[in-house]
Amino acid sequence: MSETKRTPISDLGEFGLIDRVTKDIKIENTSTEKGVGDDAAVLAYGSKKTVVSTDLLLEGIHFDLVYTPLKHLGYKAAVVNFSDIYAMNAEPKQLLVAIGVSGRFSVEDIDELYSGIRMAYGVDLVGGDTSASMTGLTISATAIGEGEEGKLAYRNGAKPKELICLTGNLGAAYMGLQLLEREKKVFAGNDKVQPMLDGYSYVLGRQLKPEARKDTIKRLKENGIVPTSMIDISDGLSSEVLHICKQSKVGARIYLNRIPIASETFKLAEEMNMDAATAALNGGEDYELLFTLPLSLHDKLKDLGGIDIIGHVEEESKGVYLIAPDGEEIPLRAQGWRL
Amino acid sequence: MSETKRTPISDLGEFGLIDRVTKDIKIENTSTEKGVGDDAAVLAYGSKKTVVSTDLLLEGIHFDLVYTPLKHLGYKAAVVNFSDIYAMNAEPKQLLVAIGVSGRFSVEDIDELYSGIRMAYGVDLVGGDTSASMTGLTISATAIGEGEEGKLAYRNGAKPKELICLTGNLGAAYMGLQLLEREKKVFAGNDKVQPMLDGYSYVLGRQLKPEARKDTIKRLKENGIVPTSMIDISDGLSSEVLHICKQSKVGARIYLNRIPIASETFKLAEEMNMDAATAALNGGEDYELLFTLPLSLHDKLKDLGGIDIIGHVEEESKGVYLIAPDGEEIPLRAQGWRL
Repeated sequence: MSETKRTPISDLGEFGLIDRVTKDIKIENTSTEKGVGDDAAVLAYGSKKTVVSTDLLLEGIHFDLVYTPLKHLGYKAAVVNFSDIYAMNAEPKQLLVAIGVSGRFSVEDIDELYSGIRMAYGVDLVGGDTSASMTGLTISATAIGEGEEGKLAYRNGAKPKELICLTGNLGAAYMGLQLLEREKKVFAGNDKVQPMLDGYSYVLGRQLKPEARKDTIKRLKENGIVPTSMIDISDGLSSEVLHICKQSKVGARIYLNRIPIASETFKLAEEMNMDAATAALNGGEDYELLFTLPLSLHDKLKDLGGIDIIGHVEEESKGVYLIAPDGEEIPLRAQGWRL
Repeated sequence: MSETKRTPISDLGEFGLIDRVTKDIKIENTSTEKGVGDDAAVLAYGSKKTVVSTDLLLEGIHFDLVYTPLKHLGYKAAVVNFSDIYAMNAEPKQLLVAIGVSGRFSVEDIDELYSGIRMAYGVDLVGGDTSASMTGLTISATAIGEGEEGKLAYRNGAKPKELICLTGNLGAAYMGLQLLEREKKVFAGNDKVQPMLDGYSYVLGRQLKPEARKDTIKRLKENGIVPTSMIDISDGLSSEVLHICKQSKVGARIYLNRIPIASETFKLAEEMNMDAATAALNGGEDYELLFTLPLSLHDKLKDLGGIDIIGHVEEESKGVYLIAPDGEEIPLRAQGWRL
């Protein structure tokens, strides 16, 4: 490690760190069409575009094996990568998975993990790496997908006046995690207490077994719609809206009362004295798709089904704000991880 | 984790575990030309072939930051993946890197790491992931490369009577690691003792800053030679020979006194009362290329330069043996990691 200046990583935060390590990268190969800075890279190895994305899942950070079945974890490792490929308006075709395992895992545990990874139907597991680990379980997955010329959706194409659209609902995965953490604490040191998970199967499923929005990509294609920009919700709505705005050089208005939140999410948030809207804005792991469309497609959106218009794109100078029901304008802030 | 049968992973070992998690995989996409089981997967997204490989590096398993400069580590993370792409007779073009970092790393540390990653000239860093980590540093790298139709070298093409060829020399990276481990122990608890690393810059460089065999791939191409099979030496000569033999359904004879070993490797092995041949056979991390060629190309091999013929391919029924200088036949055994 460097012996001179030592700036804590917490001074930069996740996004500052990414900006720092990726600045001034020069693209050298003609087959590299789009490098860092989107949900996935885009490669041009032929008439079709190749789209690549990678994600790292670390025990103690991204998952807790006390309440995460290994099969679900394997499935999730695959799905979160597919979500990045869908967020390019492309389709995942291949998957590589590298794992690091310590001695406390059995062969049957690894079987469980891979049975989950291999539940990702229609995508080929084409490679990976296995390694010993000193420190629990590490999973690194890379997905490769196929997109059509001229039909990929980047983060930088949003234009003022366009509609900001969202699939599904937000905050459920985060509230599922809060419930699991609460029951883990109650359960600790008392084997006779049963976790109280009844009545919350929806939020638990959203946390433990997320699905990527393959259905939306299919319906966009069937209806001949290509979003002007798109991103998946992995870190929370706030930071995803800011990513699109920064790269598209635009502002935005998001209406708080238009953000879809499931009733179970509301109910659990109330029970736990938490704010469901905060879970939706900053919780993350929803793997829904956020995208922009021209105003002219407003009526066609109904044909897609299950899509909400939660706001609109503004000029860059107007900033990025959340509009509360009383009309108050609250600046959107990104979170990302902090050490 | 599974509550029923618990087989220790050590019962299977690395290669048994890989066989288990990858058996019966069905390829579902036409763009998947070759899935698991080689140095890299091969995808057909156009007239050129796309080749993909991924590797995971974990602190405490693959590297020790006491003696590994972060810049070298970054470079190595890239190079070990390029080596897999070269081992397909293809050229790396893009790289994705995912890292997990704990609070003990500074921003300058991460700068150092990425300055090493980005020293990999000619390859585009196109994506990745950054994450917090509870347990030190994790690096996952994925390389994507380009190969030509009909010119990729798989592990399964070796035929009886063919020549077994090797670039460079073996065992140096392993002996470099032994030296670093020895000096780490001497140094522990005694700040006044200086590590005794003088005179061993070659083996240290092979461990800390390995190079992939871009030069060999270039010269093979210039001379119009396509190996019938090829693999890179990451785990040690023994296990790589066995990989080729298993997948090509052939046997082999490797002549111990033809295995190239550098004089510094011999000297250090003697000083440490170790066997240089064992380092060459099982040490790994040499990132040399092992390949097979038809006998008819014997004379043309000289034009390539720096290539040794270390044995020949046999019928499968003849087995895989190392021939000692006295003629004794010793069965080759693979190692891989064990928990």
